[in-house]
Amino acid sequence: MIRGSLPSRVEIREVCPRDGFQSVKEKISTKDKIALIDAMAETGVSVMEVTSFVSPKAIPQMSDASEVMTHFNERWSGKVKSVVLVPNVRGAENALKVSPDSLNFVLSASASHNRANTRRTIEESLAELKEVKSLCGDVELGLSVATSFQCPFEGAISPDAVVNIVEKAMEIGVGTVTLADTIGTCDPIYLSLTLSQIKKVFGDYPFFLHLHDTHGMAIINTMAAMEMGFYRFDSATGGLGGCPFAPGAAGNSATEDMVNFFDRVGVASGVDVERVLAVADRMKTMGLPVNSHMSSYRAGCSSLSCEG
Amino acid sequence: MIRGSLPSRVEIREVCPRDGFQSVKEKISTKDKIALIDAMAETGVSVMEVTSFVSPKAIPQMSDASEVMTHFNERWSGKVKSVVLVPNVRGAENALKVSPDSLNFVLSASASHNRANTRRTIEESLAELKEVKSLCGDVELGLSVATSFQCPFEGAISPDAVVNIVEKAMEIGVGTVTLADTIGTCDPIYLSLTLSQIKKVFGDYPFFLHLHDTHGMAIINTMAAMEMGFYRFDSATGGLGGCPFAPGAAGNSATEDMVNFFDRVGVASGVDVERVLAVADRMKTMGLPVNSHMSSYRAGCSSLSCEG
Repeated sequence: MIRGSLPSRVEIREVCPRDGFQSVKEKISTKDKIALIDAMAETGVSVMEVTSFVSPKAIPQMSDASEVMTHFNERWSGKVKSVVLVPNVRGAENALKVSPDSLNFVLSASASHNRANTRRTIEESLAELKEVKSLCGDVELGLSVATSFQCPFEGAISPDAVVNIVEKAMEIGVGTVTLADTIGTCDPIYLSLTLSQIKKVFGDYPFFLHLHDTHGMAIINTMAAMEMGFYRFDSATGGLGGCPFAPGAAGNSATEDMVNFFDRVGVASGVDVERVLAVADRMKTMGLPVNSHMSSYRAGCSSLSCEG
Repeated sequence: MIRGSLPSRVEIREVCPRDGFQSVKEKISTKDKIALIDAMAETGVSVMEVTSFVSPKAIPQMSDASEVMTHFNERWSGKVKSVVLVPNVRGAENALKVSPDSLNFVLSASASHNRANTRRTIEESLAELKEVKSLCGDVELGLSVATSFQCPFEGAISPDAVVNIVEKAMEIGVGTVTLADTIGTCDPIYLSLTLSQIKKVFGDYPFFLHLHDTHGMAIINTMAAMEMGFYRFDSATGGLGGCPFAPGAAGNSATEDMVNFFDRVGVASGVDVERVLAVADRMKTMGLPVNSHMSSYRAGCSSLSCEG
């Protein structure tokens, strides 16, 4: 395990404001959202997925996307890079009006999950990605590939299917690609299998990993990815999140668990775990469904008096 | 991560009946205990920590130790190896009356934790271990070294302190040694540091690892241990457990999470994860504090209908 093959630093993209908040049914007020986003931006993350430009009918929680993004620009422009999710051309058009640093389009490597999530075939999604790209101008466009490893409907996804989609996305001109273990059931062997294929085909092209902790393997999968030269990770403060088409899946890997892990294995993340925990605590008091190891259990020398 | 260095098989010691049940405040009836123990024995585990011969005043939950062990002998002798915990000479005397396959004595690598847990210095505990050994005859005696990596009072424990205790235990004649991450805050780098020292000094002597999932690192620590040639692990069905002198620590690593992990990375454990999950479900319906990834989240192809 100590093989000198870990990166010296990782990049964390905080996705709670989008992937986390969107899974919360009760409306979080725009004021509360902005306060939490500001606190998350102050933890040291360099990138944040700030909101999602989806139909307010589909996800009412994201109906204040423009307002949230406008605030983010005013407060954090040039300091924390902003990403917003866009599921389609219409979302891209709305998003571009408020000038985020980057858009992120989503499709699934599994045809059945893509249909459940977007009501499109993968080819239709790629055609829409191309249309979105044509609107972007200088704004960066990224692609998230959901179910890159396991699908709730189809089981294991072949690395070739993922490579095939990424190749097409690159032809279209996406700037970064995110490989998502959407249901959080991937193991380090299968992850390594897919990532070795990705590395072989795409070399040092910038990939993010988006992991969930459903079966307790978010940390070991993070280690496996780092050992293969990947060093960009999504995580959500408080472990919020989920997938409407993956019932039974756990939330995103928690930022506080990931940062604690990076701290412990000597990999710099630039993020202050105590600040992240303070945000998670605040979210708890607001009634948000915080679920992380670090926020549940703070065992350790510093938290206990020495009565020995 | 795929380095061909994993063992082909692991040995799981099911510790829920002792380490798990003892942390449950409400009395579990002897009949229920026995039913759960039988169900756990049927999952395929080869060793079980069946009970603890402690003062019934200190831990009332274990007051039926003799009855439980007598049943276990009748039903499982020769099929599943039995271990019972003994904290002192008196416990050993009582345990030996009901003929377990093995006794397990406990002390801590940290002086302050040992004092909190046993009211003895480490030297006094080692002297008592020697006395227990003199009573054992042909019955195997093992030693669990609590806080082998991290201590709630002292922080990181030096590998030398652990080596020193194990050397003395071997002189006394213990048969197996268990290294416990009692508060579950160890990381794979520190674990590897200690285990490499252990391997250097003791070679292939049989060690068990006893891990907790407090900070979400039970699985990655298991992988780190396997990569260093260790292949014996404690775990508790349902993730029950804890430590009275480590408030805020999570329960034992859950047998269902460990077995699922071993299954996924192609390491044979001999244990049927579905059977373990059935026991965890039964424990839930009995109101026991089950806490594991697999029992909380069963996302995956098999548990979902394909509506794509």
